[in-house]
Amino acid sequence: MADNDSISQYLASAVDAAQKAGDVIRKGFYETKHVQLKGQVDLVTETDKACEDLIFNHLKQLYPAHKFIGEETSAAFGTTELTDEPTWIVDPVDGTTNFVHGYPFVCVSIGLTIGKIPTIGVVYNPIMNELFTGIRGKGAFLNGDPIKVSSQSELINSLLAFESGAKCDKLTVDTFTNRVNSLLSKVRSIRVPGSCALNLCGIACGRLDVHVQFDFGGPWDVTGGAVIVTEAGGVVFDPSGADFDITAQRVAASNPFLKDALVDALRQTE
Amino acid sequence: MADNDSISQYLASAVDAAQKAGDVIRKGFYETKHVQLKGQVDLVTETDKACEDLIFNHLKQLYPAHKFIGEETSAAFGTTELTDEPTWIVDPVDGTTNFVHGYPFVCVSIGLTIGKIPTIGVVYNPIMNELFTGIRGKGAFLNGDPIKVSSQSELINSLLAFESGAKCDKLTVDTFTNRVNSLLSKVRSIRVPGSCALNLCGIACGRLDVHVQFDFGGPWDVTGGAVIVTEAGGVVFDPSGADFDITAQRVAASNPFLKDALVDALRQTE
Repeated sequence: MADNDSISQYLASAVDAAQKAGDVIRKGFYETKHVQLKGQVDLVTETDKACEDLIFNHLKQLYPAHKFIGEETSAAFGTTELTDEPTWIVDPVDGTTNFVHGYPFVCVSIGLTIGKIPTIGVVYNPIMNELFTGIRGKGAFLNGDPIKVSSQSELINSLLAFESGAKCDKLTVDTFTNRVNSLLSKVRSIRVPGSCALNLCGIACGRLDVHVQFDFGGPWDVTGGAVIVTEAGGVVFDPSGADFDITAQRVAASNPFLKDALVDALRQTE
Repeated sequence: MADNDSISQYLASAVDAAQKAGDVIRKGFYETKHVQLKGQVDLVTETDKACEDLIFNHLKQLYPAHKFIGEETSAAFGTTELTDEPTWIVDPVDGTTNFVHGYPFVCVSIGLTIGKIPTIGVVYNPIMNELFTGIRGKGAFLNGDPIKVSSQSELINSLLAFESGAKCDKLTVDTFTNRVNSLLSKVRSIRVPGSCALNLCGIACGRLDVHVQFDFGGPWDVTGGAVIVTEAGGVVFDPSGADFDITAQRVAASNPFLKDALVDALRQTE
């Protein structure tokens, strides 16, 4: 197990990498983008690739013995198996559709697992200049200030973030809109921001009360954010109420008061 | 008809008022809020009332002969009839639910009609420090820089902003989710940001390609934003394709290329 000094150094290195990638994202955000289609609606940009290379090169140089799992690498070569070794799990640009359209919910998401446990989280939105960080057992921060989840205890008064995901086949769309239909009468309002990692950070700082997403890309969307939510006093779980599995491509998050009500509400949408 | 000097002065006055209100919003955004329920999900805050008073007092002192229509005043006394006189139409806090939750899409929206024609628009998001302005015939700006709508010409590649509105009865929710279901296969992705005025500004600066909203509060949600969209090269229209009516509580907006495809797509959701 890494000691506290190492962990603090890992966080500082991840922040450096995220800020360097953020500079690239910020530049691309305001310029014409050259995009390729990946599937029907999922876009991958030159920036996405450049940022993953930049982050991995930065971290590999510092920590050559560590393992690396990234969205772009996995899309090309398949996902590397998660082991007990320190493993950096990176989404270089979360909210790719937002990025392509110039919609400001875009971020770098970096997580580090040690013994398969998410231990460090860094999520950086370079457009809004918001840096979310967390170390397991040491709290969560936004631009250096401590953050905590909302104190809302009633689902009916809650703001829910929900995403339709990248797939747009009829079954996926029908399932999504049926769930929205059922949930709209059980919460105050729904937002569809378009970035899983930033939704988790929204839970962590209390902007959002509950978040659910099915069918996202992979562990890179959630590993960093999961640390930040947990350290802000929140809970991350499977939408069924079961334990969170970073490889399952399903996630829910909330403050501790709303978990049961959210799981019940989701069960009624099945 | 007011001359150019007067119009420029009106804009400067509206920007002053919006920035003063923005200071109040920014302060409230980061503090505990004391909210009252208005209907089932629509929240009105002390900040909302304070900002409307502040904006109206500022403008009334400068322009005592002008007319005033505001969300809060109208909620209390009914909507004042729109006449040919210069009329300030104000939503002191658009995105009230976002404000209450600390979600950063919140703005002041100020419009001025002259001869019933929206002539000046000021929409200010004090959390993201984004000031959108427009004068009829003189262009649209974000923090002083000219803006224009996106050049996207294919609905299937477009980012759509759509809102469920304040009502949450079964018919409203079913209609909303049926429309989302139908539209999701016709656009790239949907966002639900929670502020009609900022959605219009999102169209104006090309972050969003198409926007539709039914059942919003009143002309204060759209008057300022409509000027900004039009001056950025966009079109504002009724979702049926008919001419835009600021009193109709229905609005659609896009760049000029997407209007017909959007109207067709909406017709298929009826």
